Amino acid sequence: MSEIQVKDLIISAIKNKKVAVLKEIFETVPTIDIAEALDDVEDVSLLIYPFRVISSEYTGELFAELSSEQQEKIINALTDKDLIKLLEESYADDIVDSLQDLPANIVSRVLRVAPTDLRKDINQLLNYAENTAGSIMTTEFIEMKNTVHVKDAIAQIREKGKDAETVYTIFVRDAKRNFVGTVSLDDLIFAKDDETLEDIMDRDFVSCHVNDDQEDVANKFKRYDLNAMAVLNKEDKIVGIITIDDVVDIIVEEANEDVAALSHVAPLEDSYLDTPAWRMAVKCVPWIIILIILGTFTTMALDRIEKSPIFTAIPVLISFVPTLMDTGGNTGGQTIALMIRGLGTKEFSPKDFWKILGKEALTAVLVSACIALFGFLWFTIEQYTGIVTNENLFVEMNGTMVARTVWNGQCWTGEFAAHTLTISGIVAVTLFIGSFLAKSVAVMLPLGVAALKKDPAIVAQPILTTIVDVVSLIVYLGIAVAASKMFGLF
Amino acid sequence: MSEIQVKDLIISAIKNKKVAVLKEIFETVPTIDIAEALDDVEDVSLLIYPFRVISSEYTGELFAELSSEQQEKIINALTDKDLIKLLEESYADDIVDSLQDLPANIVSRVLRVAPTDLRKDINQLLNYAENTAGSIMTTEFIEMKNTVHVKDAIAQIREKGKDAETVYTIFVRDAKRNFVGTVSLDDLIFAKDDETLEDIMDRDFVSCHVNDDQEDVANKFKRYDLNAMAVLNKEDKIVGIITIDDVVDIIVEEANEDVAALSHVAPLEDSYLDTPAWRMAVKCVPWIIILIILGTFTTMALDRIEKSPIFTAIPVLISFVPTLMDTGGNTGGQTIALMIRGLGTKEFSPKDFWKILGKEALTAVLVSACIALFGFLWFTIEQYTGIVTNENLFVEMNGTMVARTVWNGQCWTGEFAAHTLTISGIVAVTLFIGSFLAKSVAVMLPLGVAALKKDPAIVAQPILTTIVDVVSLIVYLGIAVAASKMFGLF
Repeated sequence: MSEIQVKDLIISAIKNKKVAVLKEIFETVPTIDIAEALDDVEDVSLLIYPFRVISSEYTGELFAELSSEQQEKIINALTDKDLIKLLEESYADDIVDSLQDLPANIVSRVLRVAPTDLRKDINQLLNYAENTAGSIMTTEFIEMKNTVHVKDAIAQIREKGKDAETVYTIFVRDAKRNFVGTVSLDDLIFAKDDETLEDIMDRDFVSCHVNDDQEDVANKFKRYDLNAMAVLNKEDKIVGIITIDDVVDIIVEEANEDVAALSHVAPLEDSYLDTPAWRMAVKCVPWIIILIILGTFTTMALDRIEKSPIFTAIPVLISFVPTLMDTGGNTGGQTIALMIRGLGTKEFSPKDFWKILGKEALTAVLVSACIALFGFLWFTIEQYTGIVTNENLFVEMNGTMVARTVWNGQCWTGEFAAHTLTISGIVAVTLFIGSFLAKSVAVMLPLGVAALKKDPAIVAQPILTTIVDVVSLIVYLGIAVAASKMFGLF
Repeated sequence: MSEIQVKDLIISAIKNKKVAVLKEIFETVPTIDIAEALDDVEDVSLLIYPFRVISSEYTGELFAELSSEQQEKIINALTDKDLIKLLEESYADDIVDSLQDLPANIVSRVLRVAPTDLRKDINQLLNYAENTAGSIMTTEFIEMKNTVHVKDAIAQIREKGKDAETVYTIFVRDAKRNFVGTVSLDDLIFAKDDETLEDIMDRDFVSCHVNDDQEDVANKFKRYDLNAMAVLNKEDKIVGIITIDDVVDIIVEEANEDVAALSHVAPLEDSYLDTPAWRMAVKCVPWIIILIILGTFTTMALDRIEKSPIFTAIPVLISFVPTLMDTGGNTGGQTIALMIRGLGTKEFSPKDFWKILGKEALTAVLVSACIALFGFLWFTIEQYTGIVTNENLFVEMNGTMVARTVWNGQCWTGEFAAHTLTISGIVAVTLFIGSFLAKSVAVMLPLGVAALKKDPAIVAQPILTTIVDVVSLIVYLGIAVAASKMFGLF
């Protein structure tokens, strides 16, 4: 069934109040697809209908998947009794996710009608700082004492498991309520009835603390192939758990943030499609303005250099400026992107500085040499073919300037060739120095910023571009002056 | 325990042949940490020791986590009997992952000693194209008929589950061997003994085909919060499964590929630290050369424009060229990054073209207007302060050129102010048009490339930069000429 068909089917079942069809749909169609169909429904009486007739076992999940706009409409339309039923079937962390995007009056109504236990959980979760382990954990998990027998553990899971976010991992504590290990559901099933959890539990568990950054938590899941992880408070007591499905979302979110930062967009709170144009502009404009201000240094340098005697004498040197600046930016950008992702996915850390610097230094020499060599060839071609107008390569013929082609033999010998090859040489050497500098700075900046515990993705690239642009231009001028003295050609 | 301590402990236990200590380490330390410690060990006799004395239940996993260099050493050092034991405790997909990086003689030895069933599985997996569902799936899963009773199902899991990659999802088939649903382990535990799998199974399962792209598979896991997914062949029979831990790796890999492509680096096959400098250069150089060649169009445009009468008369216009080009590239780059990630994470598809174009058009107007307004102000400041040397704003005083400051009153009236503000205006209007163009092209290019089923991350950005640079320069010239005619100031 295509998405469009599902949507039509759902809307028509609701409009015609066909409860049986609607029940069949909820049993066979994934909830996220139903939520997407309902996200466009304007009419509240249609939107609320499934919440009145379908078991809250399904509508709890449906509610969590809807946009905050639709959630607000539904909460406003539901009676207190229906709202309680809905809350009871939802997980505390899902409710908190929803509440963070809803207006204050809705939040207080939800907290007022929520059962005491749930309210306590919600309040606790709301108090953890954004992007910490505490803010994404759930408080509904299965905890048992280490002395419990396998048989009783299975009985307990059957009894209480329905309320837990996962029954695949049981968190084991000792008599002092310290967290001592985990038992996976399959270990429990394979174990003998009279063994205790102590006998079968994994002691090589990995845990995190409530204030840990969610990116660090995600990297631990990835590294250790976990399904669920215990979240501990300052006293190392377990206060919640994080499950793998939440982590998948975090990994995508963090990757999106890295891409956004590298492309100078402030992170979006909502999905792209849900972010209105004006908010998009707010995310985009400040960085562009900062970049224009930083670019002032480049403007200043270029302004001085283009009026220098040597650049006035050989205007073709100006034509190569964009190539020099773009190439510096691009080679540096390559390295910075690899650094940002490596730091983001914890593949390496600022501690590996010297190892990475050594490797990048060698890479930088190789890359810079290759592109300088290619550049030398290409810039010569550009001059000979007239892509750039190097005046010395042109002769007057019948009143207009035409290129001295290689066929008339003059260009490959004497002053013309020396002039052309010197210009290509000046640009190529600047390219080498600029690329090498760009790659070196591109290693040091992100690792340095990360060592200061700031986000390298945001800070590093604009500074890199400015440094590389300005230094490249100064080097360019210096080499041009040196070449003119050395070869006496200009 | 810090990483360094763990490493010392393991090496010393191996050197001193302390089996009990080593066993304790394998029970309490996560396998990946042990593997990292052993990755630096050169001496084969030390490396092989754990594989001789520790239960293969642990060493199978350890082997999978080691680098291919170490894996090769170990296979060469093991007797056929020990190798079989190791293979039997490994998952087929892990073995295939290892084999893909090992020399042919090792591969044939492994296939020779592997038990028939395992060999069949390995051969099958080796034949699926890279980055497809087939290449990442495992063939060890639990499949049962729909008529099996809950009690018997649990008994079967206890018996056969140890060999399966996951026991949390049971895949259900009907009498014709068609895949009809899934039962999760917790549903099984909560169910009554005499119910059949048919009664309790989820019919709203999500599956994929062997040739599906791994990125699509990962997006389905994310969208539907799955733990495991069935992989079907052309006849819709189930041939393997993919589990969430494999998907986490894919999501990170795909995000890294997007970042790399946006930064003009060819995707790395290995991790950054494992990629030698020369291979790094191979990944970096070709793109830089392509960008230099594409940049030729910009060079050509600038070369023509800088020699136009109006730019020769007002050289300060050249000083603003980097700002114009960088800003166009940056505003376009913002949009392209959002498109690439949105397409990559399947948040939207080329079908949403008109919706996205409408929203980006509005965003583009807002962003371009804001930065053009700021630009007008900033460029005026740059001229008045002498950041750029607008000759008309300077007067000779005691033999040197000094800025006519705002205090002497002359700059805000008459020709000087008109000249300065006209220049700011020319640059600001070009900035507006350039940014608007950049954002518009940045929407159309990736969506267009994606609609042609090519990878938008690689193709879109270099083309964007070239188009925006060249068009901006031509627009700049046109506006400058128009302004000089309109105001007659130059």
